[in-house]
Amino acid sequence: MSAPQQAPSIRRFEPADWPAVWRLLHATFLAGDTYAFAPESTEAEIHRAWVELPAATYVACSADGALLGTYFIKPNQPGLGAHVCNCGYVVTPEAQGRGIASALCAHSQAEALSMGFRAMQFNLVVATNERAVRLWQRLGFALIGTLPGAFRHQRLGFVDAFVMFKTLVA
Amino acid sequence: MSAPQQAPSIRRFEPADWPAVWRLLHATFLAGDTYAFAPESTEAEIHRAWVELPAATYVACSADGALLGTYFIKPNQPGLGAHVCNCGYVVTPEAQGRGIASALCAHSQAEALSMGFRAMQFNLVVATNERAVRLWQRLGFALIGTLPGAFRHQRLGFVDAFVMFKTLVA
Repeated sequence: MSAPQQAPSIRRFEPADWPAVWRLLHATFLAGDTYAFAPESTEAEIHRAWVELPAATYVACSADGALLGTYFIKPNQPGLGAHVCNCGYVVTPEAQGRGIASALCAHSQAEALSMGFRAMQFNLVVATNERAVRLWQRLGFALIGTLPGAFRHQRLGFVDAFVMFKTLVA
Repeated sequence: MSAPQQAPSIRRFEPADWPAVWRLLHATFLAGDTYAFAPESTEAEIHRAWVELPAATYVACSADGALLGTYFIKPNQPGLGAHVCNCGYVVTPEAQGRGIASALCAHSQAEALSMGFRAMQFNLVVATNERAVRLWQRLGFALIGTLPGAFRHQRLGFVDAFVMFKTLVA
């Protein structure tokens, strides 16, 4: 299904990346089948959520500099819950099936540890996004529980969502 | 254990309530055993979290106007997850055991429905806060799953936390 590929180059987001990142995020959230961000979210709202609020944002690029994907990392809770981080990942349609999401997630776990986080939590993994659920499980995330009808899928209506969690420290 | 009591008067928070609410929240978060808000949180930070960011904030008062407790209600996620609300409740030490938390939670469920929410989620119920866990279960919240070590308890160190959820619509 996927040809052998060289690992993508993953680096910190820079302001010059934003036009390509926004195009990708806008198209992703417009579909309304994976992330809670409202399909009608403005560029400023998404810039705030993906770049300004998180602790850090990253991009994956091909050898010729084309955007392959992006992710952010941030504390999932304030204060006494801030040792658990939360990440969000998006991969371009063209780069699907090439291991980019897996590479981003592996990168984010290493970054999380170096930033002092002890665990990673996904709060709302859409149950119908089966590829993502399988990938996170393969990467060691436990399915903690099912939130009934917690995601308003743009095509399917209210669907379940999963809380997933991985302890990173030994 | 608890004497029969008249139901507390629950109403919308007003700016004049803040000094008493802040005293209660400050003491609660300082203990660091129930909420993730950092014990060293400033008054401005907690005002923002408890009053400015939520969709609405409420207080419960005794007949003579003394504060008995407070809660907020807000969407738990943006956009496609915004039909699930999140609430946080605090009761004064003096009013413990008088059914105030139960009355606040019942009130919040009615408010949630009138505001158009379909469900209510608690993201980080500290496992060692057994009284709260039992109360939420008695009030119909399901224990969705356990987040291992997700709360840094100020006396006990890292302890588990529960995700709890209740569907409000029929």
